[in-house]
Amino acid sequence: MTYAIGVDIGGTKVQFAIINRQGSIVKRHLVPTEADKGPEQLLEKVEAGIDRMIAAIGQSEHIEGIGIGSAGQIRYSDGSVWYAGETLPGWSGTPIKERIAERFPYPVTVDNDVNVIAIAEKRYGAAQQMEHFVCLALGTGIGGAVMAAGQLERGVFGGAGELGHVSVDMNGPACDCGNQGCIEQYASGTGIARIGREVIQQAAAPIAWEPNAKAIIAAWLQGDAAATQVMELVIQALGTAIAGYIHSFNPEGILIGGSVSQAGERFFEALDQEVTARTSPVMRAACRIVPALLGPDAGVIGAAAQVWHHPSWK
Amino acid sequence: MTYAIGVDIGGTKVQFAIINRQGSIVKRHLVPTEADKGPEQLLEKVEAGIDRMIAAIGQSEHIEGIGIGSAGQIRYSDGSVWYAGETLPGWSGTPIKERIAERFPYPVTVDNDVNVIAIAEKRYGAAQQMEHFVCLALGTGIGGAVMAAGQLERGVFGGAGELGHVSVDMNGPACDCGNQGCIEQYASGTGIARIGREVIQQAAAPIAWEPNAKAIIAAWLQGDAAATQVMELVIQALGTAIAGYIHSFNPEGILIGGSVSQAGERFFEALDQEVTARTSPVMRAACRIVPALLGPDAGVIGAAAQVWHHPSWK
Repeated sequence: MTYAIGVDIGGTKVQFAIINRQGSIVKRHLVPTEADKGPEQLLEKVEAGIDRMIAAIGQSEHIEGIGIGSAGQIRYSDGSVWYAGETLPGWSGTPIKERIAERFPYPVTVDNDVNVIAIAEKRYGAAQQMEHFVCLALGTGIGGAVMAAGQLERGVFGGAGELGHVSVDMNGPACDCGNQGCIEQYASGTGIARIGREVIQQAAAPIAWEPNAKAIIAAWLQGDAAATQVMELVIQALGTAIAGYIHSFNPEGILIGGSVSQAGERFFEALDQEVTARTSPVMRAACRIVPALLGPDAGVIGAAAQVWHHPSWK
Repeated sequence: MTYAIGVDIGGTKVQFAIINRQGSIVKRHLVPTEADKGPEQLLEKVEAGIDRMIAAIGQSEHIEGIGIGSAGQIRYSDGSVWYAGETLPGWSGTPIKERIAERFPYPVTVDNDVNVIAIAEKRYGAAQQMEHFVCLALGTGIGGAVMAAGQLERGVFGGAGELGHVSVDMNGPACDCGNQGCIEQYASGTGIARIGREVIQQAAAPIAWEPNAKAIIAAWLQGDAAATQVMELVIQALGTAIAGYIHSFNPEGILIGGSVSQAGERFFEALDQEVTARTSPVMRAACRIVPALLGPDAGVIGAAAQVWHHPSWK
């Protein structure tokens, strides 16, 4: 059998997996990132995790390569970190690919964490029939990836697809990126919590939920009026952003994953309507809005799948 | 010598030109579109204009092909009109390429009018050194085109790059596309005039300019306070939209053409500042905002240049 090793480096945890060509995980491992301990300890953790995966694969089996997905903007040409920000302090500039390739006798591929999710969904998930799609990960922040004609959009250094930093209100709340009203300020977990706190502050009656996305979504699904107020704004904002992506990319599909998308069917129905109202009919007719299929494993599966699909994996 | 024939089909006029490989126009012709007379008369006009260009080229010269740029969304696969809307009534569905290829013994290529501007700017204009750029045409409406890794982004049917329909205010003025606050409602000629009318309505003192983009821009450049109020909103909105394009596409350049861009250096300086304030520094540092170079001839030059650069013209 032939296997690939995948590594998904996030702000709170690092996931390792061995996958087969069918995209099934045959072995996995998880460690905390401990991002505050700096890049050298993180690289050592990644190396130790890969060692563990290699040891778990029988010596008679074939390892095709190592694929890594990392938070931050990855310079695709050399697999180094262009910019990682506060999620992974000190990670900017780290030559991930060079370092890992030095240590292991296998081909190494490195890409952005949301780009590899798009690879996983294209290969094994909701986008198997799509050549043109947008992938949104609604988690703590909002990550994006864009596939056009079966290829990931990278832009000049690999920063394309930062779709959380598209504004839907030029006078809206300030975002870390410098802009105002970025969709990340509304439809991420952090954004939903922010709107929740505002609703609580302005409420005349006591509010039955804590201002976090999970609680707000649960209350919304049970018909709570104040939570509905929050979620209507979230859906309005996200519908506006998605209408913009559809006009920009003319995709066949918008895939939505991440914790917020677990709000489920009612969330997707409301979003569908909002997008339809805000998009020119010919563009809208060509595009479906669908849940990502692979869930929390998408990152590590896609990281590994790069090995078989680099640089053109149609 | 080798020549190409270019045709630029717009809502008010159809331009024809013969260009050489250096992108110089050696002969040109212009007729009114008379869009209200319907698609058949327009096709006949296009044929007659091409006849005229062919007659103007000496019989000993070589015609490489015919390139057409048309308003509306063009289905790139067969060169037909996917959707044209009110600019060219009845034009949707017209099989431009099939019809013209039937009539003339030359290869025919058809694309969207802003895509061909991007081709012209890449080949002969401001984007000669760029592989990744966004082209904005600020005219009556706002047209867009995106080039990534030296190739035009087309999306699933050829509708990608409708950048005028990216919203910067989800509660903003209604747009034809169904959305609210599309950048076309602010930074097109029509959008500037709309804001101008609002400023006039709310003004306490008499206003010295008519509510059209040309007059408002002229007054702004002379320091008129009310015109400054209009243009500050225009630049704020356009800066917000461009920040979104930079985060989405990670381009090396944003090229801005069209009548509004003739506001000149002060417009570009103010826009530059606005975009810098609204874009994450690493993405901003990679991207220059520059005027398109080829002006009103870009469409017909790019239409013709397709002939030499189809489908991959790196």
